[in-house]
Formats: sequence, C-alpha cells, structure tokens
Amino acid sequence: MLRPESYAGGQWIAPGASAQEIIGPVNGTAIAQAGGSALDFAAMLEHAKTRGGPALRAMTFHDRARMLKALAAYLDGRKEELYALNPLTGATRKDGWVDIDGGIGTMFLFASKGRREMPDGHVYIDGDVEQLSRRGTFLGQHIAVPLQGVAVHINAFNFPVWGMLEKMAPALLAGVPCIVKPATQTCYLTEACFRMIVESGLLPEGAVQLVIGRTGNLLELLGAQDVVAFTGSADTALMLRQTPNLLRNSVRFASEQDSLNAAILGPDATPGSPEFDLFVKEAASEITVKAGQKCTAMRRLIVPEAQIDAVAGALADRLGQIAIGDPADKATRMGALASFAQRDDVTGQLTRLKAEARVICGDTAPDLPGAYLVPTLLACADPDAARAVHEIEAFGPVSTLLPYRDTAHAARLANAGGGSLVASLFTHDPQVARDVTLESAAHHGRLYIMSRDSADEATGHGSPLPHMVHGGPGRAGGGEELGGVRGVLHYMQRTAIQGSPDILTAITGTWIKGSREIEGPQHPFQRTFREIEIGETIHTKAREVTLHDIEHFAHFTGDTFYAHMDEDAARANPFFPGRVAHGYLLLSFAAGLFVQPDPGPVLANTGLNGLSFQKPVSPGDSIAVRLTCKRKTQRTDSYGEVAWNATLTNQHGEQVAEYELLTMVAYERP
Amino acid sequence: MLRPESYAGGQWIAPGASAQEIIGPVNGTAIAQAGGSALDFAAMLEHAKTRGGPALRAMTFHDRARMLKALAAYLDGRKEELYALNPLTGATRKDGWVDIDGGIGTMFLFASKGRREMPDGHVYIDGDVEQLSRRGTFLGQHIAVPLQGVAVHINAFNFPVWGMLEKMAPALLAGVPCIVKPATQTCYLTEACFRMIVESGLLPEGAVQLVIGRTGNLLELLGAQDVVAFTGSADTALMLRQTPNLLRNSVRFASEQDSLNAAILGPDATPGSPEFDLFVKEAASEITVKAGQKCTAMRRLIVPEAQIDAVAGALADRLGQIAIGDPADKATRMGALASFAQRDDVTGQLTRLKAEARVICGDTAPDLPGAYLVPTLLACADPDAARAVHEIEAFGPVSTLLPYRDTAHAARLANAGGGSLVASLFTHDPQVARDVTLESAAHHGRLYIMSRDSADEATGHGSPLPHMVHGGPGRAGGGEELGGVRGVLHYMQRTAIQGSPDILTAITGTWIKGSREIEGPQHPFQRTFREIEIGETIHTKAREVTLHDIEHFAHFTGDTFYAHMDEDAARANPFFPGRVAHGYLLLSFAAGLFVQPDPGPVLANTGLNGLSFQKPVSPGDSIAVRLTCKRKTQRTDSYGEVAWNATLTNQHGEQVAEYELLTMVAYERP
Repeated sequence: MLRPESYAGGQWIAPGASAQEIIGPVNGTAIAQAGGSALDFAAMLEHAKTRGGPALRAMTFHDRARMLKALAAYLDGRKEELYALNPLTGATRKDGWVDIDGGIGTMFLFASKGRREMPDGHVYIDGDVEQLSRRGTFLGQHIAVPLQGVAVHINAFNFPVWGMLEKMAPALLAGVPCIVKPATQTCYLTEACFRMIVESGLLPEGAVQLVIGRTGNLLELLGAQDVVAFTGSADTALMLRQTPNLLRNSVRFASEQDSLNAAILGPDATPGSPEFDLFVKEAASEITVKAGQKCTAMRRLIVPEAQIDAVAGALADRLGQIAIGDPADKATRMGALASFAQRDDVTGQLTRLKAEARVICGDTAPDLPGAYLVPTLLACADPDAARAVHEIEAFGPVSTLLPYRDTAHAARLANAGGGSLVASLFTHDPQVARDVTLESAAHHGRLYIMSRDSADEATGHGSPLPHMVHGGPGRAGGGEELGGVRGVLHYMQRTAIQGSPDILTAITGTWIKGSREIEGPQHPFQRTFREIEIGETIHTKAREVTLHDIEHFAHFTGDTFYAHMDEDAARANPFFPGRVAHGYLLLSFAAGLFVQPDPGPVLANTGLNGLSFQKPVSPGDSIAVRLTCKRKTQRTDSYGEVAWNATLTNQHGEQVAEYELLTMVAYERP
Repeated sequence: MLRPESYAGGQWIAPGASAQEIIGPVNGTAIAQAGGSALDFAAMLEHAKTRGGPALRAMTFHDRARMLKALAAYLDGRKEELYALNPLTGATRKDGWVDIDGGIGTMFLFASKGRREMPDGHVYIDGDVEQLSRRGTFLGQHIAVPLQGVAVHINAFNFPVWGMLEKMAPALLAGVPCIVKPATQTCYLTEACFRMIVESGLLPEGAVQLVIGRTGNLLELLGAQDVVAFTGSADTALMLRQTPNLLRNSVRFASEQDSLNAAILGPDATPGSPEFDLFVKEAASEITVKAGQKCTAMRRLIVPEAQIDAVAGALADRLGQIAIGDPADKATRMGALASFAQRDDVTGQLTRLKAEARVICGDTAPDLPGAYLVPTLLACADPDAARAVHEIEAFGPVSTLLPYRDTAHAARLANAGGGSLVASLFTHDPQVARDVTLESAAHHGRLYIMSRDSADEATGHGSPLPHMVHGGPGRAGGGEELGGVRGVLHYMQRTAIQGSPDILTAITGTWIKGSREIEGPQHPFQRTFREIEIGETIHTKAREVTLHDIEHFAHFTGDTFYAHMDEDAARANPFFPGRVAHGYLLLSFAAGLFVQPDPGPVLANTGLNGLSFQKPVSPGDSIAVRLTCKRKTQRTDSYGEVAWNATLTNQHGEQVAEYELLTMVAYERP
C-alpha cells in the first residue's frame, strides 16, 4: 500500500486518519492511501514567500536555467522508478513516455530557452525602447520581473508527472516558488517524482511544496502576487474561479480545460492520398493513447460528406485491432481508464452522445476486471443541428465523425466546440490551410496542420510541446501555458518603465542609447568578458570615403550597382543625391576603424543585428564610428557574447548608419 | 438640455421615458437627460458580428491603420465642438486637453504603430519560427488573428473622450467591432465625439455602437470570442466580473481600476535638488488636475522621514495658490468634481483617512455653488500600522504623505497598496532606481522615474501613453491596455501553428525557410514591388575567396585583425582553423554575386537583420548565395520594403552565413 506524503515547510507529512483509499483501475484493488492530514496553508505560503521566493529571485535567469537543467538530468537518471509505478495508473509504457519523458523533456527545454532567450540577469526586457520624447531624454522600456508570491498548481489525474513538471519549470525559471496539488487518483506517481526533486537537493528551500489531498482554504489566502494554474474539468475550473477572494484581488487564474478538439480531413485528402492515411492513423492513436484521457484528444472528426464511409471503415478496422488489457503487459496497446468513476462518467456521456450519433464500432465493455472501455467511434448525421457532440466531452476512448460540405462549413463545425486547445487539419493544399486558419484560428489555441511533407517529423495532434503555447479560448479555459518564454512571463509582472537613458540602463543592465559613455583603460577589444563594462565606448578617428574607394570596392566585390557607378542614374533614384558609397563599404571601413588587430580577448565577430543605413554617404564624405558595449551574455565556461552598439556619423555629425555588433569574448586573456 | 442618444444597429435611439436627469457639477442645474430606452442587446451583438466584424476582418492591419489615421484627423478637425461641452463636466480646458487631444493623439499613435509594427496582411506573426524537428520539415509559428466577437467597452466618467478612443483604437486596429458604454454622468461628451465618428463615414457599418444608460443583459449574452474592457471602481469591476456567464465562457475581462498609486521621493532628492522641486511640482499637479479624479493620480506621497516637513510646507504653499472655480473661466486652475455624489464620496473617504492621518492643508468646502473641494494634503505618522491610507481611495484632490526610513522601506510602503497602475520615483541616482525597481516593479503596471535629466521632456506621472502598457496588478484590476501592439493583441487570439514550411508560408504570407522556391521570369531586382512573389529565388554562381582577396581587403579597409592575417595566431583562436575571410568580405562578395547593376525597381539596400556568421571561410573556399523574397510591406504610395532571406554556402554545400536583407522597391519600373 502506497502512502504518498505532502511536503510542507520543508517537512514530509504522512497521510492522516481520514486518508482516502485509492482503488487501482487495473484490477480494482486498493493501491494507496492519501491525504487526510491537516496542512497549514498559511504557513506554507509564508514559507514559500519568505524562503523560496527570495532565494529564487536572488538567482539570475541563467542561474535558474542551469538549476532546471541539472534537475532534469537528475530525474532522467532515476526515471525507471517512475516507469515502475506508471502501470498502476492504467497507463501503458508508451502512455507513460508522454508523461515521464515528456515532463523531463519539457524541463530540459525550459532550461535551454532560459539560457538562449533570457538574460543572465534579474530583469527580462520586453520589446524595444519606446521613443517618448523628441530629444530622447525621456524613454520607455517594458520589462518583466518575477512576481513576489506563490504559484499554486492544481493538476489533472491524467499526466501526474508531466502535469507537475510542465507548470513547475516555467514558474521556477521565472523565479516563483510553487505549491503543487496533484489529482488524488494518481498522486502517488506525482509524489514519487516530487520526492526525487527534494532528494536532488538542487532547489533552494521553499522553492517547491506538495499538497496531497484537499486544498482547504488555500485559494482564500492568495493575493495579487500569486498565480493559480489549473488543469482539469470545466466544472471544477468554474468552481475555483468563482472563489470571491481570487476575483476581489485580481489573482491570476490560468485554466486549461478539456475541450471538444476537432480534426478536419481536408477536401484534397481523398482515400489513397497520404493525408487520408495519416488522418486515420492519427485519429486511431488519439482515441486510444492514454485510453483517450487527454485534454487534447480528437473528439470530433470532421470529414467531407463523401468520405464519411471510407473514414468510418478504415478507422473501425484500426480500432478493432487494438489490444486492450493490463498496461504492464508489453502486448497491450490500450490500458485502463484512470478509475472506475472515470469509466462510469464516460459511459454516461456516451449515452448522451448516442442520442445524436450512431455507433460505428465499440460501445461495449471488455471482459476484464478493471476500468476498461473498448474504443468507440460514433457518427453524427446532422452536425449543424446536433448540440451534444459539440458540448459533451466523453473523456475516454470516444470520438465522433461529423460530415462537412466545404471548408467554410468544416471551419464552422470546428468552431462550434466553443473554443478548444487544438484543432488539426490534414491537407497538402496550402490554400486550404490558409482558408481554414483565417476562419478558425481564433477559436483554437493550436492548429496542427499535417501533410505528407512533415509526416516523418511531426510530433502529433495531441502533444503539447514546450515551445508552443498550450491552452485555448472559451471551453478550453481561456488560459495559456508553455510557449517558451511566453509561459515564463505568466509568472512575471510586465511593467512599463519610463525615465532617462541612464536610469533605463541601470535597470535593464543593457546600454540604452543616450546613456553615459564610459572611457575604458584600454581598447575594449583588449578587455576580457569580465572586465568590460556596460557603456564602455570608443570613438574612432574619421576616414574619408573617396570616389576611388567606391570604384575600387565595386570592381573588387563585383557590386557595380548603378547607384555607386553612374552619377546620372544615381541622381534619378529617389534616395540618392548622386553616386554614393556601398553600405558594405561603410561597414567594412567601420570595422577597419574600430578593430584592434592584435590577439586579445575578443575572439570573433559572430554577427550583426538591426543594421540600418540612414543617410547616403557621398564621395568625399568621411565617417567615424562610436562603439559602445551594450549587453553581455555568458555562453560557455570560457567565453560570452558581447553586443556593441555601433553608430557611424559623417563629417557633419549626422548619423549615417547604426547596428548592433555581436562578438565572442573570452573570460581570460589568451 | 442635452439629450445624448444611443446608436444601435445603425440607428440613433433617443432617451426613453425613464431617462435619467444629469445634474451639472458646476452650478447644480440639470444639463442633460440620458438613457431609459430599451435597447435590444442581442440584436446589437448580432449587428456587430454579422456586419462590423466581417467588414473589419476583410481589411488588412494597414487598411485599418489608415482608417484610424483618417478618423483621428477628422476628429482633430472638429475638436473645438468637444471643448465647448467640456466645462459642463467640471473640467478646465487643460483637463480637457488630456481627454480630447489625448484621445485623438492615442488614435494617431495606434494608426502609426499599425503601419510600422504590424504587417500589411491578415495574420500577425508573434515571435520566431520554432524548430520542432531535426530536418525542419515540421515547424512551429505563433500567430495572432482577430477575435470573431465584439469588444464591449465600459468606461469611467472622468475621461469621456479619451476613455472611448484609447479602447476603440486598438480594438478596431485588431479588427474587432466595439460596443461603447460610457458612464452616464458625462455621456453627452462621449456621445458628441461618437456622433462625429459616425458622421465621418470612415468606419464600416457595425464597427461601432453606443449604449447610453444601462447595459441590461448585455454581459449575459457574451461568449468566448468577446472581450469586456472595463475602467472604473473596484466595486463595480467585482460585480461585473462575477457575472456567471463571463466566468463560464472564459470571456476575457480586462479591468482598469483606481488604485492607491504612490510617488517616492528618493533619498538623494533633498531640498534644493532639482528632483525635490520636480516632486513638489508634480505632486501638486497630480492632486489638482481633473480635481484629482484620475485613476493614476498620486494618492500616497512616500517621503524620507527627514523631508516630511519640507515637502509638506512646499506642497501646501503650492496647493494654496490654486484658483478653484468655474472651469470655463480661464483663470481657473481647478474645476469641480464630476458630480455632487462624487464630492460626497470623497468627503466620506476623507473622514476615514483622517482617522489615520492629520490634515496639512485643505479639507474645507469652498464657497461656490457646485461640486467643489479644496485640494487636501494629509500626513500619516505611522504608515506601517495604518490601513486606510493603503486601501481607501479618495477619488478627488486628496493625497497623503507617508514617511520612510530607507529605500527598501519606501518600496515596501509603495507595495502595500496591493497593486497599482503607476508608481513614481524622483531620483537622480541610477542605483536607487534599480533597487526600487527590483523591489517594487512586480506591484505596479508602470514605474515613472523622474530626474533632472528628463525633466524637460517627461510626460508626467499621471499620463498613460499609448506606447506603454496601462494597467496594474491586484487593486488596479489586473488588466492591461495600450502598450502599442500589446494592446492590440488583447483583441486577438494567439494561436500556435504547426506544419510544414510551405503551410506556414501560406498562412503567414512570409517565406519560411525550407519552403518551396519560385523561379521568377527575370532577376528579382528587375521585378517591381507588385510583381515580385513571396518565395522568388535566385541562386548565384560561386566565387572563390583567395588569400589575396583577404589580404587585399584587410589593407584596403584597415581591418587587419589577426584572424585574417596571422596563421599561427588564428589557429590559436578557438573558432578558427587558421586564417579566415572577414565576415564583411563575405557580405560584400555576396552582394557582388546577387546584385543586378542596372537601374530597376530595386532602389536601395536599406539595412539588414539577424546576420549570423556560422562557419569560417578559409582561403581557397568558395561561396555562393541563395536570395529569396521573404516579406513585402507597403511603405508609401510609390515604394515598399522587400525583405530577402540570404544564405551563403561554401563549396561543400555547408551554410556559412545567413541574414535578412532589406531593400526598398518601387511599385513601377523607373
């Protein structure tokens, strides 16, 4: 008998006297006792806010990303312990892969995004500087900083590991401590993974806590700096969302609800086409993976009228071959539902669906002791009049075929679900993809478009990826998770900062144009990554650009564009007063002006951003460069990226070009 | 007697039998009758969804931006009609400037952002392509498309024109029709402006409707594609937010509430410093502009303990000189509150504040017939123990001084307001600015940091700018408005698109790497903006890069960096196998390879984005270029920007560099 424990204020807390018995869905015996202990939620929040939050916020985004990478690697090393528990939930090894490896992979991805797309500092920069004044003494910059409260994660029973990790990774990367509350039915698997996290010793004290059992008055104690992220049914979401305290304090509440996700078979995807076969294969998989208990599963299969019979036949064939049984058995392709209660719910929902749709296959109970159901396919003849097929979610191995007339009708049917997490479209016709997107994207959090071109590498309709937003409007809850940095920002406050360039530079750690320039003790290319300061600047001497230079460069490079070579033709061009220097000639001369030729810490010019040529340079004009250290980002143990703001001005002091120069710079002198 | 009318389904609807009488705050006489007519809200929603929405969505972002620009110009031409009504609301001409010119300016700014920062198409691209597969046949791209519902705007009494226009501009730019519901007390001014919008004939039928009076069952009819944006009191917001239909359908609800905004006088800003004077001046202005009826007004003045008396004295002096009276009188510096009820509210709130704070000046009723109050300054001795000063908002010319010990304490006091729209800090010390930001930014939607450096150009603590996000956490409502494109996205659905490169290209209208290349009938530089197609590509011949080329380029440009010139030193560099070509030499040769020298539609290379050098090019290697038309954006009546994806590959087919090249291209051949 498993006895999963809560973890509160740094202590493990065993199930209490009124612990609930968890019945295993595979054979109906009790497998665990959970909950029933009195947790002091106020103390848990205080622990998170006084210990976890400050410790996490003291770290930079890169520090926290490295912590997540180490944690993901630690869990990866112990994952077989989780796979050993997995069949108790009714899930096959393949189902468990989505949950366990999927969860660990999500944490790895956030670790990677944190290093690559967030700064090695405490302030995330959101968008460009806003020019709020003519002379540039008053500017705007949006930033994001960690919320100073707690992330409360209320998770669903179907992904006990992924559900925890996919919410925890972005929250910790943001710098916000978490209180995790798994669904009781599968909480022992969550607890096993959570215990590893604690045992890893990689997180600061107070960064994570675990609630097994009820949340009691937890939501009534939250404030404006806290976040609730919920995954589960619409009914539970509605109940939680209405908590007066959450509404009164504008507490962020993100909800991820099961939805009536649709899959559309394109009009071009006739039987025999690769897309037809991909559709049938993926629909069968969506119905049976996790016994259909996925919030993203295809519930409505929207198919051209003419193809309904072909799809029904092919899909029924496939579903008929699915081996149902003990999830621990390698031959099993579909295990049990998560609980007997869950199975009874699905049976009830199926009854309501059958009032509007006929059974194509399934709808029988297999002769097995556990909470099993046979994959069931329905077909609805009049999907415009039907209501239940667009409103009732049978959260199990059940899907319904709906016929459509044209793509506009197909999109309308997909949208009739009232908002979903994901809709998919199987087509090889880009125009069909565009039409359906314009009609339908507003109703879905994700559009998965499948064709022969991506068949080998596509990741599946039902799989939320950490790179892409997960969540959808309306019935899907109106929440958003994941999506790379977007998911991290849900745990941060976006704040508009207004002030002078120097103030913005101090806050963002990035040199903002107009800020103070610092004169360094030597050429900046001779300064190591550690030494060089934000704002360090050199002003080069000027160099004249002669007509001879321009002609020489043209013939050397082959760029004999008329604006450089032909005075009359150049003059006829609306942008040029006559022959002008090549932009690349200016860039090249600029490098010649600012470069320090000797070996030093600056190792390489790796690229350039946002180059704009702002004023033509005519023969006889001269240019000089100002180069200022703008931003530093650690990359490896031995070097980091330094970004420089470069401006080129002519002999009248007018700016003719600007860009951001990227270099790799060593920590130590060679 | 004014009789403002609703505008529903394309018809003006006069006040009904049960219309409400609006009493003018200046002298207590009735000035208008409003509301009381039975509006069919279901029909209004239907009108917006079947007429306004489709018409707006058929336009591109640029079409809608041009429409907004024309509308703003139209309103600007008739604004004196609005200024004529403005004093009836109790507001001075200066108060009205914030409302009327501020509103029109906001619309101009969104028109400009729409043209500059959004595409000339139907799909907004959110972020970069996500590489979801190893070979790149399956990619991700976030997009945003207009919601297919209606934006319901419920506005406050204090900015009858700005309140309407600042919400309407981003909604219309997004492509979403609006139903505007102004506060009844000042609705006649909103209606006058709305009537101009209708009379302009610039908006499609159904794009805007107006509700004078109660919203009846409107919120109960909304769905997941609709948005409610509310500005007003926390109590009203809570009442609306709880509407079961909104919660059940996850209807977006953005709330902008009055909050206990703070202003911190920095520890460095001692009497005699410019920042001390700026603080006193701005605090006096915040207390008196609009008679303190601004959701952003400074309610709590957080001042170093040692400066409390100096600030109290200076501020009381200034407030004592404010001329109060008829807002139509040019000598008046502060007019009436918006209504007698509003004045009574403030008086009541003042009573509660006085239990915790003593009166420094004000707190008297002037001898005038209207809803006037004298500017009132309080001081609270123990702001840590006090509750009312952090919770009770006197929405009038009232502010309270709070002493602090150090910057951490100052930030804590600012945060004690439980979330605000804006906090300001008067300091010339960048480190103070950074410390307060890290402690406090999570609690405020905007941080306004004021120093002598930006004094001449700063726009004021109390002024939301359309460039910057307006809204704040907790007590401020947790909503967000404005902020440029950020504000537009509140009316759009962000959707994650997954598919092959060709599919993503078709949806976004931007060439995604890996998509089909199109061979054009001639060199792409000879094709006009109109002719050139997304995906049109040339592959150049290869060119060898010789050691002589590298040396020649080095001496010509002056860029004699050792990696190009010294075999041994270059070999010691971790990135290079030996001497390598300059990045700018490659760029220059690339241009020589793809350029078409004769006059043609391509007018100029204006810049370059995201250049990355990916592999060194050694002497004897050769490079070739692939140049593909990636994106087209109209700029003027005669030319547009064409962005090209350029990749350089070596003789082994390995990519050595990639960038986006920007050109200006004429619509017609020269």
